[in-house]
Amino acid sequence: MTDTRAAPTLPQPYLLFLGDVVEPGYAKTAFGLRDWAGDKCVGEFACDGAAVSAGLERMTPAEARARGARSLVIGVANSGGVIGDSWVAPLVEALEAGLDIVSGMHVRLAAVPAIAEAAAKHGRRLIDVRTPPAGIPVGTGVKRSGKRLLAVGTDCAVGKKYTALALANAFAARGVDVDFRATGQTGIMIAGGGMPMDAVVSDFEAGAAEILSPDADPGHWDVIEGQGSLFHPGFAAVSLGLLHGSQPDVIVVCHEPDRQKMLGTTYPTPSVEDTIALNLELGRRTNPAIRCGGVSLNTAKLSATEAERLITAEGERLGLPVADPIRGGVAFDRLVEYCLG
Amino acid sequence: MTDTRAAPTLPQPYLLFLGDVVEPGYAKTAFGLRDWAGDKCVGEFACDGAAVSAGLERMTPAEARARGARSLVIGVANSGGVIGDSWVAPLVEALEAGLDIVSGMHVRLAAVPAIAEAAAKHGRRLIDVRTPPAGIPVGTGVKRSGKRLLAVGTDCAVGKKYTALALANAFAARGVDVDFRATGQTGIMIAGGGMPMDAVVSDFEAGAAEILSPDADPGHWDVIEGQGSLFHPGFAAVSLGLLHGSQPDVIVVCHEPDRQKMLGTTYPTPSVEDTIALNLELGRRTNPAIRCGGVSLNTAKLSATEAERLITAEGERLGLPVADPIRGGVAFDRLVEYCLG
Repeated sequence: MTDTRAAPTLPQPYLLFLGDVVEPGYAKTAFGLRDWAGDKCVGEFACDGAAVSAGLERMTPAEARARGARSLVIGVANSGGVIGDSWVAPLVEALEAGLDIVSGMHVRLAAVPAIAEAAAKHGRRLIDVRTPPAGIPVGTGVKRSGKRLLAVGTDCAVGKKYTALALANAFAARGVDVDFRATGQTGIMIAGGGMPMDAVVSDFEAGAAEILSPDADPGHWDVIEGQGSLFHPGFAAVSLGLLHGSQPDVIVVCHEPDRQKMLGTTYPTPSVEDTIALNLELGRRTNPAIRCGGVSLNTAKLSATEAERLITAEGERLGLPVADPIRGGVAFDRLVEYCLG
Repeated sequence: MTDTRAAPTLPQPYLLFLGDVVEPGYAKTAFGLRDWAGDKCVGEFACDGAAVSAGLERMTPAEARARGARSLVIGVANSGGVIGDSWVAPLVEALEAGLDIVSGMHVRLAAVPAIAEAAAKHGRRLIDVRTPPAGIPVGTGVKRSGKRLLAVGTDCAVGKKYTALALANAFAARGVDVDFRATGQTGIMIAGGGMPMDAVVSDFEAGAAEILSPDADPGHWDVIEGQGSLFHPGFAAVSLGLLHGSQPDVIVVCHEPDRQKMLGTTYPTPSVEDTIALNLELGRRTNPAIRCGGVSLNTAKLSATEAERLITAEGERLGLPVADPIRGGVAFDRLVEYCLG
């Protein structure tokens, strides 16, 4: 019984919208889409005077539509998480050109009257990927068919999304039947669908994870983007509902080596060992066969030599495959193969 | 810094509305209000032909208003969780008489046009206690002053609400400065305020628990109603967010001895020992001094002799105070005193 109530498929391919940002840090969503869904992006579009580019061909919404684009994706944030006044005219232009708009902003697209009116007038959709679908059921814990891997973390923002994407790509490259299952806004845009787990009402958190990775063929893998950390005093509820509902066969623990305190708190970051142990302990509740497939280290702040040394040392210390998926290499191959079992 | 964003104070005293139910099982909310907030209920009211009574004086909304009632509380459910057609005229009568309406139904009061219109016309409030307040913050895990006790459970519906109410009453009877903190709809109606934890978006679950039991005097106790179970495959996210955000000094584990399977699942009910251990392990994250104050057994299905025998045997086996708060007695006194430490 496959349940398809997870967030609907987004209209692809995309035109990436870069707004008027001048700091690359605010364009992470656009960069993520370029890097992981580049084949689904026909070009980029920005306000006059925008200083940031994702390196794609710049074009108008009408040109993008002519090349097959079906939606404009807001690929930037600003400090308030709002839709800037200067964005309204370009977004209306996109609707007029026949594109839907996809947004992960906190503010709803339809809350901006000019955008709501233009969408209604031109019969276009305004899609807020932070909004969960209606009718999410309560979790049952009933075992589903198929294989599942969940990327978990010692903390928030340590690389769970990119780890899951890299593992899904590597599985596919080995001929494995695999789906990446997105649980956050950027992941959902990359995948073209998914479940915004942190926006789901807590009573339905595990149920939302259950419908995100439905029954599948015995050889099929779902590689699921994790959220938060079981140790985070603010977000552990999200992590536990996702763990229980995903009933993973394999977890991969994601970690940033130099993270001293958990995001937004004074709490020390837990060790990789404690994170493995607690995820296995709690995950066993819905999948007694759960095991750890290895560790994904985010070594972006280290030199290649330092990263290699750390990856080797951690692998020996933990007795598990350790790799940085972004660096790839033999270490990552070992991680992939150990996950597949 | 006391944060008062938890659900607003409900207008009390109440007139209990019993609808048209003929099965006492559907009137649990009314019975709970009668038993635990009897001093805040001026009477009861029902449709013609209703067969269930809470044993209070029957009166019209106008009579209740004249005796000081400020709201009508819907004290019944029906199988669909909806507002029955036959309820609309009596509810409109209550609004006309000057009463607000308080509801814990799934359907919103304002979704019934005749009720919404009457409320607007007479300037009355429609209060859905399942709706969390706006602006709940993300949890921080910052330690708060004052003492906290959380009633946790081996499963859902094992007596956590009544255990917390009985403990809060017993604390007060000993001269302790105490507040009962409600986390479910009936508890919120009894307390006249609280936080509907299962309706909070998961990203804010721990934050909602944090504002429910704000900073307090060092000798003050908050006795917090628990939700779900850390072992429940559907609801553990609610339980973990509540545990982290409550940062309890003391947990009391609630258990129904003859519960073989967890509510709505085929999962075996966990043991009391495992429930103590997991709550202490995870609760230590936000309060390293957490301890177990004892066990509350729901012995409603046992004879007095069987109950006493079981309570004694479990106390010896676990080496902790064990009692049924509804039966009270010396065993319950011991539990209360051990909780207070």
